Amino acid sequence: MADQSVSDIVVGRLPLYLRALDVMSKSGQSFVSSHELARWLGTSSAQIRKDLSQFGEFGVQGRGYDVHELRANLRHILHLEREWAVVVVGAGRLGSAVASYPGFAQRGFTICALFDNHPDKIGQLIGNLRVRPMSELADFVQAHRVRIAMIAVPASAAQEVADQLVQAGVRAILNYAPIDLVVPPSVRVENVDPALQLQHMTYYLSEE
Amino acid sequence: MADQSVSDIVVGRLPLYLRALDVMSKSGQSFVSSHELARWLGTSSAQIRKDLSQFGEFGVQGRGYDVHELRANLRHILHLEREWAVVVVGAGRLGSAVASYPGFAQRGFTICALFDNHPDKIGQLIGNLRVRPMSELADFVQAHRVRIAMIAVPASAAQEVADQLVQAGVRAILNYAPIDLVVPPSVRVENVDPALQLQHMTYYLSEE
Repeated sequence: MADQSVSDIVVGRLPLYLRALDVMSKSGQSFVSSHELARWLGTSSAQIRKDLSQFGEFGVQGRGYDVHELRANLRHILHLEREWAVVVVGAGRLGSAVASYPGFAQRGFTICALFDNHPDKIGQLIGNLRVRPMSELADFVQAHRVRIAMIAVPASAAQEVADQLVQAGVRAILNYAPIDLVVPPSVRVENVDPALQLQHMTYYLSEE
Repeated sequence: MADQSVSDIVVGRLPLYLRALDVMSKSGQSFVSSHELARWLGTSSAQIRKDLSQFGEFGVQGRGYDVHELRANLRHILHLEREWAVVVVGAGRLGSAVASYPGFAQRGFTICALFDNHPDKIGQLIGNLRVRPMSELADFVQAHRVRIAMIAVPASAAQEVADQLVQAGVRAILNYAPIDLVVPPSVRVENVDPALQLQHMTYYLSEE
């Protein structure tokens, strides 16, 4: 489905454009120029026009982009017209926060199951999800054709969990464990490691 | 302090190298070749050698990099030889999880205060931090010379919080609110928005 000729960096910017359009749409704005979108996102209007032109002709001469239409187009391109089912592995403090965070559902992702291997955790209710044992993971993923998972287990357990997820059919992993997962080329991994982002910024902070 | 001639993309990769070296160091490994580091990180050895060469001569001919030494050098370059004090604004579910996440302290960041403006939240104990009222934010940041903050408030409140933080002297913001903050050029912002990362990956998932 995805056009492989488009660079992954460009693809990575589309959700940012969509996020801005979501806000504009909610506030009732009908049109937006590439200049306004660029100011909003701290980028250049040329960049936005160039990025979007790779997917079609979206602008209207003199009026800019139709907010509703461009939003619908981006949702189509990113395969967000459907709800995606997501499983979370790890029901510790982080996994619990992730599983009950309302921001995912608002953006197209329904967390449908939460797994852990600790006897104390299994059966507990977190948000509206009851923690399932790891032994049920593969069957659940296969039965519900789940393609997306989030890993929120300790670093030492993350690779094994990733292997199980991939084996069961998961194709996209959001990894909260602070290690680099090894997966086949057909599987995408995005890492969430805010400490990395802090360490990136401290480079620019002088020591006083 | 920071060498402005080094590209921000290269700087952004240093914490990744450091994270790998942290693991190697813990497991007692003394030397690592650029090839092994590259395999670990899913990048090329040429990339790693090129990145590191911008900061000095770190490799030892025929033996690769001294893990302990390179780790110490990267910590120096990234200003991680000291502990950084961090304030968290927003004591909701996300802010509470962020404030009590042990992964920050292990990587050089001490969360020293948690702020919220909701009367029900103020005074509550979250982890070992008592939630402080927003009215104390500016004084606290100034008194403790805090340079780093995390924003975990709703999108609608995030810009105002960012303005207050910048005004008080914060120079680096980790933003968990799903909006683009506007800050002066002297202030760095990194955004944590896992839904964006999921939306990036769904581009590559076919709709079955």
